[in-house]
Amino acid sequence: MSTKLVKNAVGRLVPTEVNGKPQVPYMGVGKYKPTGRKYAPLIASCADYPADGNKIVPSLKDALIKAGLRDGMTISTHHHFRNGDLLAIQIFDIAHDLGIKDLVWAPSASFECHSPLTKYLEDGTIHHIEGSMNGALGKFTSEGKMKGTGILRSHGGRYQAVQDGDVVIDIAVIAAPTADFFGNATGDRGPAACGLLGFALADSQYANKVIVATDNLVPFPCVPWQIHGNYVDYVVVLDKIGISEKIVSGTTEVTKSPDRLLLAEMTALFCDEAGIIRDGFSFQAGAGGTALSIGIYFSEMLKERGMKSRWARGGSNKYLVKMLEDGLLEYILDGQTFDLDGVRSMRENPGHLNTSPFTSYNYHGKGNFASMVDVVILGATEVDVNYNANVVTHSDGMLLHGIGGWQNCIFSKCTILPIPLFRDRIPVIRDEVTTICGPGELIDVIVTERGIAINPLRKDLLEKLKDSKLPIKTIEQLKDEAEAICGKPEKIEYTDEPVAVIKWVDGTIIDTVWKVKK
Amino acid sequence: MSTKLVKNAVGRLVPTEVNGKPQVPYMGVGKYKPTGRKYAPLIASCADYPADGNKIVPSLKDALIKAGLRDGMTISTHHHFRNGDLLAIQIFDIAHDLGIKDLVWAPSASFECHSPLTKYLEDGTIHHIEGSMNGALGKFTSEGKMKGTGILRSHGGRYQAVQDGDVVIDIAVIAAPTADFFGNATGDRGPAACGLLGFALADSQYANKVIVATDNLVPFPCVPWQIHGNYVDYVVVLDKIGISEKIVSGTTEVTKSPDRLLLAEMTALFCDEAGIIRDGFSFQAGAGGTALSIGIYFSEMLKERGMKSRWARGGSNKYLVKMLEDGLLEYILDGQTFDLDGVRSMRENPGHLNTSPFTSYNYHGKGNFASMVDVVILGATEVDVNYNANVVTHSDGMLLHGIGGWQNCIFSKCTILPIPLFRDRIPVIRDEVTTICGPGELIDVIVTERGIAINPLRKDLLEKLKDSKLPIKTIEQLKDEAEAICGKPEKIEYTDEPVAVIKWVDGTIIDTVWKVKK
Repeated sequence: MSTKLVKNAVGRLVPTEVNGKPQVPYMGVGKYKPTGRKYAPLIASCADYPADGNKIVPSLKDALIKAGLRDGMTISTHHHFRNGDLLAIQIFDIAHDLGIKDLVWAPSASFECHSPLTKYLEDGTIHHIEGSMNGALGKFTSEGKMKGTGILRSHGGRYQAVQDGDVVIDIAVIAAPTADFFGNATGDRGPAACGLLGFALADSQYANKVIVATDNLVPFPCVPWQIHGNYVDYVVVLDKIGISEKIVSGTTEVTKSPDRLLLAEMTALFCDEAGIIRDGFSFQAGAGGTALSIGIYFSEMLKERGMKSRWARGGSNKYLVKMLEDGLLEYILDGQTFDLDGVRSMRENPGHLNTSPFTSYNYHGKGNFASMVDVVILGATEVDVNYNANVVTHSDGMLLHGIGGWQNCIFSKCTILPIPLFRDRIPVIRDEVTTICGPGELIDVIVTERGIAINPLRKDLLEKLKDSKLPIKTIEQLKDEAEAICGKPEKIEYTDEPVAVIKWVDGTIIDTVWKVKK
Repeated sequence: MSTKLVKNAVGRLVPTEVNGKPQVPYMGVGKYKPTGRKYAPLIASCADYPADGNKIVPSLKDALIKAGLRDGMTISTHHHFRNGDLLAIQIFDIAHDLGIKDLVWAPSASFECHSPLTKYLEDGTIHHIEGSMNGALGKFTSEGKMKGTGILRSHGGRYQAVQDGDVVIDIAVIAAPTADFFGNATGDRGPAACGLLGFALADSQYANKVIVATDNLVPFPCVPWQIHGNYVDYVVVLDKIGISEKIVSGTTEVTKSPDRLLLAEMTALFCDEAGIIRDGFSFQAGAGGTALSIGIYFSEMLKERGMKSRWARGGSNKYLVKMLEDGLLEYILDGQTFDLDGVRSMRENPGHLNTSPFTSYNYHGKGNFASMVDVVILGATEVDVNYNANVVTHSDGMLLHGIGGWQNCIFSKCTILPIPLFRDRIPVIRDEVTTICGPGELIDVIVTERGIAINPLRKDLLEKLKDSKLPIKTIEQLKDEAEAICGKPEKIEYTDEPVAVIKWVDGTIIDTVWKVKK
């Protein structure tokens, strides 16, 4: 291993160069100050585009060839269909048929449906992935089989990276449930309606070539135009671009487990005692069964008191939509719809607003929405006694999840992680997390079924909860309780070979994922 | 005069350098191909902005000082209030009080209300204007009194120039009828509602510092966010930012003159005979009494035939809104509201869409809406026998109008100029126009009270209208008729001193405005 490693501000060894590009190690929250300029795309001219607005080409293959597909390019796709995506595989099938090699795949997230791409990672069609490496792709990466090094970014970090030119996208392919021949596109209607297209915003603005693929072509203008046709080069009409039922997958179903519901209820009670549930407050509950259930408790509290929430950040789901439609919530500022009620509401409710990683999460903007949220409830695979948290690897070192908006959300005024004390008899609270995705200073509260730990940095919360009826404990106490039940977890040994890096929201590297030992 | 002049592709002498910057002479429609990259703004960081989202500063002066106002900067404002703007004067009053010199004012348009700025052009607070120089400012410019050379651009050309870095805006001040503390802003509501803020889009995206001034602060989120707070540095709350009644001014009232109504009717009949009035057709009628009246005739035709228009480009007014609300029109793609019915409709009608110079007019995009319009009806101060047209100067050489969207609109599938044969006994059809704003190849039809001339390049239209009952004539015939009544106009003599240049939509210089002789 010739990669040079340095220790960053959270004490993790990170490479100084990844896939041949120099990197900045994580320096602390708000410490790294960018000094450069945004990425500057080539200036286009209307003289090179059809005056009548019709950019349709016969097939995805034609579009990719016209866009100049060749070895080494970076190709982006988006996860608006989550596990129902039908495009990414097609794109790399075409690339493979054309004998193209060493592509970089830059999805906004990957899902189980993308597992077949391992064959293209094996045969050299794809060099590496910049985006989430979930499930089979994560296992493949963890085993050191990917040619290049994986780069994981949050949704906001992806916008930042594209905006700043850290990732230069050669060809973006945007799956659009409805579009017109000019390339105006929306996700909120059409047979494959998926809600939003915000994850493709950066790509549309900054990619060299932009292809919109739709299975529902409408006469100009396609309204709303979530994606502006003025950024689009080619439009392709396909039979089916995605399976919208499959956006309800994995992390987007509310929990039925009594344990998880207990966590949700304790979290809601904590918020109440902490004075967070006020008229006009704002909240965000991430994906994951427990987090999604919180809204139900918030609803009850608001209804009882005749209050309402001013805004909630989505991922939207039927619970959030019900709050909106019941008048308990004024606005959903949605980033992605987690179920078909969300899609419908996005289309029908004027208070259900289309947001993007630019508005909500981009750390290299003039502020963003994430830091304005009163309380955010998220999941984690592990938390350590310094409140550092992990969302990408399991305790065996295997890379199995993406970051999503998690890193961006923890900038909220109060970040709460409701987590079980252990999973499959493996403690979740550790001396050290396997992979640091978020620094402890941004994690305020850990809620477990056996007690709630408040970050000592949050003296205000400790003071407010000092006479609480809730079981307030230290994080060390919680860890000890878990270990008393499960035993002290053994330290896992890794190789010294980086297989992926975790970017912080500012583009610096906060941690490394190491190749697992056989 | 040491300025080097060259003859461009329409035979006009244009300077090779303006205000110290090299220039490209006009090369023909679609001939100049940009090779560079878009302007790249500095990368911001959320670490430098308040985490709670509150960007309010106490006063406009504070905001300007915080934004670093200093000598030689380029300051932009916008004409959403048209003649009711209250901000531009305040900004330059502040600059003057601070002793700042040599500013460039880059408004999206100027109006009579800006006449007091001549004092700051005189005392050196403002060096020159890049934007329209109407009325008193135009006269001031024409008389050679402006320190620098004025640069006139179309609305699309302004977006192009800002996008491409031809104009680098140091500080943009956006008057927002409604905004939140984060800088999200909308024009469609609030006591000073003006409809849209699209002319400020480029500025928000590319200016170094962006100030939003509002007289209607609402709790976050301000919905809709026509301007994204993520681009905004400071928010200022003022007593009154503009007089919305005054957006109905000058060119935005429908004509009552029987002569003008005749022109409108002839134009509509021409469109009908040319086969343009079809189910689903699209149209745009510019500002100016005659053009605005066309919609009334289109409405009658559509209603009679049970047809509807798919979309119309605004400037919206009560006539267009009535078409939308009567179901004769599916969408208004609006660029600016010309009256308060337009403002109301923008707020209330889902089919009344917010567009911008980016979507509609930017020639350095991947297409724009303007070239997709079936027919556009515009005004002109002069047209010549080669169909070149002028919209900025009068026949005495005086610069009195801005270009607006005119240059952008003439890319439509059929551009018609309904104009009187003469004004105040001065013929409107000339051997040569005083200033070429649009090349003849893009002007298809001239409609006058005494006959209609079709550009010989449009063989298809000549063929369609060959058995017309309308008085189809050649443009030379029309010119002769005018001269038979008014006499041959005398050639006006100018100095050889350029006082302003007219940019084409691609940033090249299509013509020069010369200092008038005393």
